[in-house]
Amino acid sequence: MLTISQYQEEFLAYLEDYPFSSEPEGLYGPMHYILRVGGKRLRPVLTLLAADIFGGDYKKALDAALAIEVFHNFTLVHDDIMDDAPMRRGMPSVHEKWDLNTGILSGDVMLVKSYTLFERYAPELQVKLIRLFNKTAAEVCEGQQYDVDFELRTDVTLQEYLRMIQYKTAVLVGAAMQMGALIAGATEEEAKTIYDFGLHLGTAFQLQDDYLDAFGDEKTFGKQIGGDIMENKKTFLYITALENLEEDDADLLQNLYEIAPADTEEKIRTVKELFVSSGATDKIREAIQEYTETAFGSIASLSLDEKKKEVLLAFGRNLMNRKV
Amino acid sequence: MLTISQYQEEFLAYLEDYPFSSEPEGLYGPMHYILRVGGKRLRPVLTLLAADIFGGDYKKALDAALAIEVFHNFTLVHDDIMDDAPMRRGMPSVHEKWDLNTGILSGDVMLVKSYTLFERYAPELQVKLIRLFNKTAAEVCEGQQYDVDFELRTDVTLQEYLRMIQYKTAVLVGAAMQMGALIAGATEEEAKTIYDFGLHLGTAFQLQDDYLDAFGDEKTFGKQIGGDIMENKKTFLYITALENLEEDDADLLQNLYEIAPADTEEKIRTVKELFVSSGATDKIREAIQEYTETAFGSIASLSLDEKKKEVLLAFGRNLMNRKV
Repeated sequence: MLTISQYQEEFLAYLEDYPFSSEPEGLYGPMHYILRVGGKRLRPVLTLLAADIFGGDYKKALDAALAIEVFHNFTLVHDDIMDDAPMRRGMPSVHEKWDLNTGILSGDVMLVKSYTLFERYAPELQVKLIRLFNKTAAEVCEGQQYDVDFELRTDVTLQEYLRMIQYKTAVLVGAAMQMGALIAGATEEEAKTIYDFGLHLGTAFQLQDDYLDAFGDEKTFGKQIGGDIMENKKTFLYITALENLEEDDADLLQNLYEIAPADTEEKIRTVKELFVSSGATDKIREAIQEYTETAFGSIASLSLDEKKKEVLLAFGRNLMNRKV
Repeated sequence: MLTISQYQEEFLAYLEDYPFSSEPEGLYGPMHYILRVGGKRLRPVLTLLAADIFGGDYKKALDAALAIEVFHNFTLVHDDIMDDAPMRRGMPSVHEKWDLNTGILSGDVMLVKSYTLFERYAPELQVKLIRLFNKTAAEVCEGQQYDVDFELRTDVTLQEYLRMIQYKTAVLVGAAMQMGALIAGATEEEAKTIYDFGLHLGTAFQLQDDYLDAFGDEKTFGKQIGGDIMENKKTFLYITALENLEEDDADLLQNLYEIAPADTEEKIRTVKELFVSSGATDKIREAIQEYTETAFGSIASLSLDEKKKEVLLAFGRNLMNRKV
């Protein structure tokens, strides 16, 4: 077993040397750009880690890890177009640095290349990996669609919101880990269990992101606090607050989400107060705790030696203690 | 063996009943729309036909045929965005009927669903089909990129142009047929030969499209004659004319492609005269003939009974005698 930062280094070295196509430059240049712009590489590291944990060799999981990372970056390129986001990880997004058409087409070829990365696995294993990938990729698109749909709806339930973030974010974390397990030859049950660990940890991670967006420390969080509130995003906090507030306060909250007041500071402060007074802030903390514990509980059921379990738990704790 | 129109009917019935996902509607609605809008269904019919020709059962090729058709329609959805095309087959294009983001995301999920359609094939066969699909899909993206790149270049060679149309159009025709052959259990060599038939026939078809766009009969061609000329598209005719014209006429042609004259009738007439006087019109007719003959030549080398060969040749002749 390597340390997390060693897996990161191994993955980055593999990515750096991978013989991706380079011509036509207008198509593959943006792919190289976005793949090298950075990011935490959490998903591919989890694939490598899972392979080692189930007694495989992380080196054999490098292609699958890269497939996951290329796919994730494809979603970023297309999502940035849809969200009209000019920046990604402190650099211009692809459609900003090039143009809309380049963003669409280079994203498309990245999706194709992510499938291509499974080609070196033996047929029986390859079809299992691809089946999981197909399901996950469709869910990620569905999650993005629900996110878009929710912008126009006022009746989104908490359950719908949770499904949306699971599809959009957490299923890929689960799939990344399950692929490592499949490559290591884990049993179906082990593969399912590690998927659930990733799914629940990914959900906790995304809920924490919602929480930090409103209540994080601007110095450590890295982006402006209150971004979701300014954009009137119907997050866990908003939906829960609306469900729990008395009529007057609920009306006030809804009203604040319909207007774009000049004084955004004031809006953010009032909304945050409503999140707290409604109990939504406590509820999201509990939910984060519950999803994390469910994730950790999956690990307990696995018959692995304790050192390996500890690596997974440490990874999870580390992720959930982040302030960024 | 069925007739071409019977294969078409079988394919349409299969498409109609296929249990694609339907939720979220905003994601899958556009997929159902574009798949049902019509089209000649040439590619999937060729997959079914190839399966039967090599002694397989076209029914086993229906999933692959549908994968090819879903992929083809994915490219139409994204290409229509890139080309800013408001119509497709006489109906509003997806981004026009919905919006840009819907066009991007529903296109993405169609690409994923095309891969998903291979899941029911046995592992050894499935990985062969997917490998061919990966290669073809990347080439189609590359062809589209070359097409975009060529708009800004003035030094595109005939060889580059031919590669572009092969990647953008013909490789998918070749792959459609090869998939049918693979499903029927044809030998590697047979699979390669039928791919080449499709590739060359697809190239002849696309060149004929270029020819008819300038010299077709408006009544039967269905779209306005001279569209490529009005859009200053650097087709086979343009590139060949420029190579063969004397300096003055070459300058005139280049100049006509740099301006957008008010009198488009006059521009189209002059350009067509230059296409004829340069010999480009004869050369494209020869090229169409050569690609068609090369395609037909591949068939001759196959050890199939003559009736089956005749079906392929009849299909090819029928395609090349079209006026639309």
